[in-house]
Amino acid sequence: MNLFEKTLHKESIYKGAIIDLEVHDIELPDGQTSKRELVYHNGAVAVCAINPDNQVILVRQYRKPAEKTLLEIPAGKLEINEKRESAAKRELEEETGYIAENLELITEMYGSPGFSNEKISIYLAKDLKIGEMNLDDDEFIEIETYNIEEITVMLQNKEIEDAKTIIALQYLLLNYNHYK
Amino acid sequence: MNLFEKTLHKESIYKGAIIDLEVHDIELPDGQTSKRELVYHNGAVAVCAINPDNQVILVRQYRKPAEKTLLEIPAGKLEINEKRESAAKRELEEETGYIAENLELITEMYGSPGFSNEKISIYLAKDLKIGEMNLDDDEFIEIETYNIEEITVMLQNKEIEDAKTIIALQYLLLNYNHYK
Repeated sequence: MNLFEKTLHKESIYKGAIIDLEVHDIELPDGQTSKRELVYHNGAVAVCAINPDNQVILVRQYRKPAEKTLLEIPAGKLEINEKRESAAKRELEEETGYIAENLELITEMYGSPGFSNEKISIYLAKDLKIGEMNLDDDEFIEIETYNIEEITVMLQNKEIEDAKTIIALQYLLLNYNHYK
Repeated sequence: MNLFEKTLHKESIYKGAIIDLEVHDIELPDGQTSKRELVYHNGAVAVCAINPDNQVILVRQYRKPAEKTLLEIPAGKLEINEKRESAAKRELEEETGYIAENLELITEMYGSPGFSNEKISIYLAKDLKIGEMNLDDDEFIEIETYNIEEITVMLQNKEIEDAKTIIALQYLLLNYNHYK
């Protein structure tokens, strides 16, 4: 079956700093028409980094949409024309002060594919070197580090609620013997 | 450190069928002000269902934001005042024709916590009974089933790009001995 949805007309609702909103009139596979509300985002990167003490570095930050703090792997938006791997190294150093010379791509994910094109590339970083923290003006975070036993318990207790972080940590558990 | 961001003023930009968009002026922890673009969503549920042949049931559907088809576990939006577990059972039967009497909560996740409050509850369903498929008018999907070896390879090859689906399938691999 051809599942393609053809755009018949686009309406721009909002152009913002982080996201744009459009509503498209579309043609469904059976020829009927419908509407799609689409949130466009430039994309993001995230890094599951293992520090020299063999602990995972997580950042706690207030997430306004959820109105609470979440514990997440370091992450951030792509700048215009920025390569994903460069962005990942930049975000890791800015948020944690660590430099990663080599990154391994864990996977790429859409977090909300029903309404948003935000795609996040998730990397694994080991063999970190000391660099320099440099947070954005509107960025307030706390760094926390956890060993693999603590990570296992936090996942079992459903304490991690951020999708990219759950994916990175489950990947670590599935492949941990390679990273010891 | 207190990481709380206080809303000083809300502007409603758009109220849609699936999402609402607001822009908030906020006060940062250091007293400075900033803006947050917030996409509000009623929440969603997803079900990792194991059929009587011990295969995982996935649905392929066109995702307009990504402009391609994605392979996902069955999922859908909460209706107004609908309980999450009821919604999960309803969506599973509507999309696959299977009834699950018992669901186990795998975890709950925010897919895009930087700009959206969409929270997805992911369930595991086994011991399925035959029910009745009933798709929405604008819903066109294909059902595909995969065994655990195929799932393992698809994850390794980064072929699964939907966050909730990656989380559910990694969970299955991590806990598979319990589900054989």
